[in-house]
Amino acid sequence: MKMKAVRFIQTGKPAEVVDLPKPTPGPGQVLLKIAGAGVCHSDLHILDEPLGLSGPFTLGHENAGHVAALGQGVEGWKEGDAVAVYGPWGCGRCHTCQTSAENYCENHALLGTMGGGLGSDGGMAEYMLVPSARQLVPLGKLDPVTAAPLSDAALTPYHAIKTALPMLTPDASVLVIGIGGLGHMAVQLLKALTPATLIAGDIDDSKLAHARHLGVAHTFNTRDGDAALEGIKQLVGPRGVTVVLDFVGAQATVDLGAQVVGRNSRLSVVGLGGGVVHHAANRPPYGCQVTVPYWGSRTELMEVIALAEAGRIQVDVQSHPLEQAVQVYQWLREGKVRGRAVLTP
Amino acid sequence: MKMKAVRFIQTGKPAEVVDLPKPTPGPGQVLLKIAGAGVCHSDLHILDEPLGLSGPFTLGHENAGHVAALGQGVEGWKEGDAVAVYGPWGCGRCHTCQTSAENYCENHALLGTMGGGLGSDGGMAEYMLVPSARQLVPLGKLDPVTAAPLSDAALTPYHAIKTALPMLTPDASVLVIGIGGLGHMAVQLLKALTPATLIAGDIDDSKLAHARHLGVAHTFNTRDGDAALEGIKQLVGPRGVTVVLDFVGAQATVDLGAQVVGRNSRLSVVGLGGGVVHHAANRPPYGCQVTVPYWGSRTELMEVIALAEAGRIQVDVQSHPLEQAVQVYQWLREGKVRGRAVLTP
Amino acid sequence: MKMKAVRFIQTGKPAEVVDLPKPTPGPGQVLLKIAGAGVCHSDLHILDEPLGLSGPFTLGHENAGHVAALGQGVEGWKEGDAVAVYGPWGCGRCHTCQTSAENYCENHALLGTMGGGLGSDGGMAEYMLVPSARQLVPLGKLDPVTAAPLSDAALTPYHAIKTALPMLTPDASVLVIGIGGLGHMAVQLLKALTPATLIAGDIDDSKLAHARHLGVAHTFNTRDGDAALEGIKQLVGPRGVTVVLDFVGAQATVDLGAQVVGRNSRLSVVGLGGGVVHHAANRPPYGCQVTVPYWGSRTELMEVIALAEAGRIQVDVQSHPLEQAVQVYQWLREGKVRGRAVLTP
Amino acid sequence: MKMKAVRFIQTGKPAEVVDLPKPTPGPGQVLLKIAGAGVCHSDLHILDEPLGLSGPFTLGHENAGHVAALGQGVEGWKEGDAVAVYGPWGCGRCHTCQTSAENYCENHALLGTMGGGLGSDGGMAEYMLVPSARQLVPLGKLDPVTAAPLSDAALTPYHAIKTALPMLTPDASVLVIGIGGLGHMAVQLLKALTPATLIAGDIDDSKLAHARHLGVAHTFNTRDGDAALEGIKQLVGPRGVTVVLDFVGAQATVDLGAQVVGRNSRLSVVGLGGGVVHHAANRPPYGCQVTVPYWGSRTELMEVIALAEAGRIQVDVQSHPLEQAVQVYQWLREGKVRGRAVLTP
Repeated sequence: MKMKAVRFIQTGKPAEVVDLPKPTPGPGQVLLKIAGAGVCHSDLHILDEPLGLSGPFTLGHENAGHVAALGQGVEGWKEGDAVAVYGPWGCGRCHTCQTSAENYCENHALLGTMGGGLGSDGGMAEYMLVPSARQLVPLGKLDPVTAAPLSDAALTPYHAIKTALPMLTPDASVLVIGIGGLGHMAVQLLKALTPATLIAGDIDDSKLAHARHLGVAHTFNTRDGDAALEGIKQLVGPRGVTVVLDFVGAQATVDLGAQVVGRNSRLSVVGLGGGVVHHAANRPPYGCQVTVPYWGSRTELMEVIALAEAGRIQVDVQSHPLEQAVQVYQWLREGKVRGRAVLTP
Repeated sequence: MKMKAVRFIQTGKPAEVVDLPKPTPGPGQVLLKIAGAGVCHSDLHILDEPLGLSGPFTLGHENAGHVAALGQGVEGWKEGDAVAVYGPWGCGRCHTCQTSAENYCENHALLGTMGGGLGSDGGMAEYMLVPSARQLVPLGKLDPVTAAPLSDAALTPYHAIKTALPMLTPDASVLVIGIGGLGHMAVQLLKALTPATLIAGDIDDSKLAHARHLGVAHTFNTRDGDAALEGIKQLVGPRGVTVVLDFVGAQATVDLGAQVVGRNSRLSVVGLGGGVVHHAANRPPYGCQVTVPYWGSRTELMEVIALAEAGRIQVDVQSHPLEQAVQVYQWLREGKVRGRAVLTP
Repeated sequence: MKMKAVRFIQTGKPAEVVDLPKPTPGPGQVLLKIAGAGVCHSDLHILDEPLGLSGPFTLGHENAGHVAALGQGVEGWKEGDAVAVYGPWGCGRCHTCQTSAENYCENHALLGTMGGGLGSDGGMAEYMLVPSARQLVPLGKLDPVTAAPLSDAALTPYHAIKTALPMLTPDASVLVIGIGGLGHMAVQLLKALTPATLIAGDIDDSKLAHARHLGVAHTFNTRDGDAALEGIKQLVGPRGVTVVLDFVGAQATVDLGAQVVGRNSRLSVVGLGGGVVHHAANRPPYGCQVTVPYWGSRTELMEVIALAEAGRIQVDVQSHPLEQAVQVYQWLREGKVRGRAVLTP
Repeated sequence: MKMKAVRFIQTGKPAEVVDLPKPTPGPGQVLLKIAGAGVCHSDLHILDEPLGLSGPFTLGHENAGHVAALGQGVEGWKEGDAVAVYGPWGCGRCHTCQTSAENYCENHALLGTMGGGLGSDGGMAEYMLVPSARQLVPLGKLDPVTAAPLSDAALTPYHAIKTALPMLTPDASVLVIGIGGLGHMAVQLLKALTPATLIAGDIDDSKLAHARHLGVAHTFNTRDGDAALEGIKQLVGPRGVTVVLDFVGAQATVDLGAQVVGRNSRLSVVGLGGGVVHHAANRPPYGCQVTVPYWGSRTELMEVIALAEAGRIQVDVQSHPLEQAVQVYQWLREGKVRGRAVLTP
């Protein structure tokens, strides 16, 4: 039996929609009927840049759907279960993977793949083979189409926030830079998770309006870096910002973050915009932890899904048929996608 | 009544030994008869570089002695009590100071001083005025001469280690770069605090021999950066080093640290050697927290003193009369001081 | 100069309103003009039961007001500053007090007082002498009359919640038993601090209606213990309740808590209702931490005040003139006080 | 093919050594050739008391050996690998199991078994079927015979200690009650993990001599409860003991623990000696967390094995042939087993 799939062929070539045989799950594996596969900016990096991933493979690393068939030995799941696929596939055996944080697998460099759609066949297809049932997370009553982006666009900011939560006491402050796909999820997550003063920065006034709509009281247009810098400094006073979450990661934004953050704080650069933090004594201030987090753990995905089930976070999703993949990538390149595009086979 | 004191006059001028009136403690203050004042490399920075500290003031920020007189309203102390002086003086009222971490005082920029010997009169004198009794920590049975350096040379690495302790499980590893004044204390502290695999790096074979003497099984001469890099990588395997504590902080050492550290880890640059961590996506690896810690908290000093009382750590101290201060600074510049020099009035 | 004060005389005698000389602050002390002093159930225990506190002393341990005079050596405060008084006074020097958690002072048994209104003169008077400026916490723009109860009625549940926060992930649940003075603050605090599923139990339907009004979706009348037990168990499923906060502490409520709580959980008994947890293997379940917390730390009070300033929590306050104290205690005994009564001199 | 196995038949009947068919691993399963199976006091409870486990099944829940055959779909292991079996088998899918803490599986009550030797076939046999490869932990160079008890006799105290480690600062103290099979491992673990003051209590002077041999400076014979109580109180002063680990759990020992423990502390009752902690306001002191932990997590077992590989802990093991099982149980009942008995097929 045949199925459609969107394939990465090799660096520099556009994605292709091709026919592939429908996979059959081996022992321990699970076949998923895909309901939605999110279209992520990272895919453009994969298509364009030599990242060390060797194709061809099916794209799509934000996936959700229904269990279609169970390989031998798989227990605890049944056909029809709605699930999200946990994306960063690790060795499963190291100390870190054992805590479900496969995003930091100690053996990642030996695996030859970063996950489905990232070296292995992903979810932009009618069916996806999940190599181990441990990568499934139940979706409860959530619609798998709109839930697909939770596994990345919500999980990635959730992880960045969760590790900083103990700092975010009610008298602390948190600055979110970049109110796009991940940033607008970060704002919702922060509203749900902490009463700390929430500040948003972006170069686009409509994004800031969106942040205000989501309940952010303090917004700054960062196009004029100095004005934003002064405004934020005045707002937070001598303590400085407690946690900066930079979802852009360009040089201008990491520089802004390093200047507003206080001592004994966190500067988390999530966006892959090419900025470099030049970190030396007291720049950023003493005791500031600078980190570039990566994706999230499986228990964090369970927590994200619980937030979505409780109606505390919502992804703004546009769905498109799988066949339109190449077009959707083009729209993404041109900045024409609002919210998150999801391909629905 | 007069007393001798070692004074910072202004940037670029040598320290001077002068006569000053013996201070009298006001309400809430405590007068200390100094037993020992540690001579620290930072003093050379103060003497040589424009750090924004305005002189003249008495040097010495690693101080211990006996209570000589109590100002009005001071409770819980009596004449003759042996005490260490907690060095980083904050506002005492902000959230951070309230937890005793005055080293990260939120209002530090408004204070005009970083502490005794760092803008205010320090301990290189017969008597020192401690502006608040809260800055005293009891020494129990410890000798205040040898205990003086605990307040900096031991407290600073202790703080860097303590915040990383949850990562230092028995199957983790920790690399100490620079087995000098702070580094040799770090090694002792790590032996007392964690069973993680301990690795030492230095460019001086005699320092590495010292590390082995203190119980470090794995030592690497980092003069040949590539050989050290390969040796450490082979030792720790694909997981990488869990925690790097760099007590040098030169460009070569921070680069080494960034290359050997694993994911989900800590790179703590304690040494002020002028190195810059160029921190970007996956360099150092994802999830690595890069931080430049500063000194330590008062409860951490209490813990350091408990370790010294239990015989778990020892500072290698040479004492010199106060009058020899200028000479001792010269020896320090020339690298002729072994262990920690302490001035004894 | 004379002032009115409400005094504890001795166990078994009613409180008395008497004239006292207005105190003068000594070195390090602060004189406060009281704006409000909360009337707490604990005062009835003090009046009625032999707790080891020797009178006479002025009652009132939930106090706020304005700085009226500073003793010598006090820095960082000025006349007119609006402040709350941190209630549990410890030695100030032990490891625990150094972290601002004087509520667990290691030397408490040696002090002879538990704080103002609890062995020392408290705030039910026109003026109160605060023995150390470290016990003041700034109120910002909050009205000291309505803010007074924050220092106990909000701080106590805040502390119980804060230590359990890492367990309260979005997929966890928390049961609040007793929606009275502390419980209705706990519900507001939980809404602000965690997205975990919130459950309320009380024997009074009007209290449950209040909980629903505050945003609690799941409420159970615990008068019929078995029905409540079954209802809660069905709601949370096999995982059990993650955190139980019992603000009643009677035998029936601690028994209910021990039966609904899951493994690897927390049963926090805040109410002093005389119940005893009979704790043995697997009763409550393995890994459940049973604890009886006491009040809170000074940094926690700062965080509570930040929540009130942000409008996230509100105490329902009725104010009465100081002279009415004996009457108000009688109303409290008879269950006729709604929300928190505050005496205003 | 046949193999010998030691079977639980039903409550009240002695264990039997029988012939069973050698199992064959299905998909996802692993067949282990057992090298050693520890003989644990819990087995006597299983044999004697109605615990809700329905037999017959093969006993042995402390198991180690070599991989003999891999079921289909098992990756990352090969024949001959030396492994320990993680004992508490959970559902593998709940939030708690995902962190590897299957000892607190949220669905444990639905599973019908607590693990191999505890409802499912265990390791007192020539071969053992491990139902999922996730339950294997690599032993490195350790001998599986002596390593078998690590999975329980060392893991259980390790878990109890690990959750209390943040309290065990250098100025804190920890009391271990009962220096038997688990207690003597606890002492070694504490020596490796924390510099806190270590205190041991037992009713048997030879056990206390053993504790001193292992490096415990302060030992108390608890047969005379009052003398031990006073001695410990005098040693630790007004702060009280920070952490009590009770490996006996009898009424006398839990009472002792509750009396010596300080505020803001931990009383961890590991031993199943039938004692009940009567927990009420300020008994044990405020802020003391009382808990009955159960076994440990898989990452904790990895950490225990790392400690054993580093030579920091050693189990005192006597090995006996499998056929002698009934006799060894009898010796255990009679208190004639020194250290840990291990059956070697």
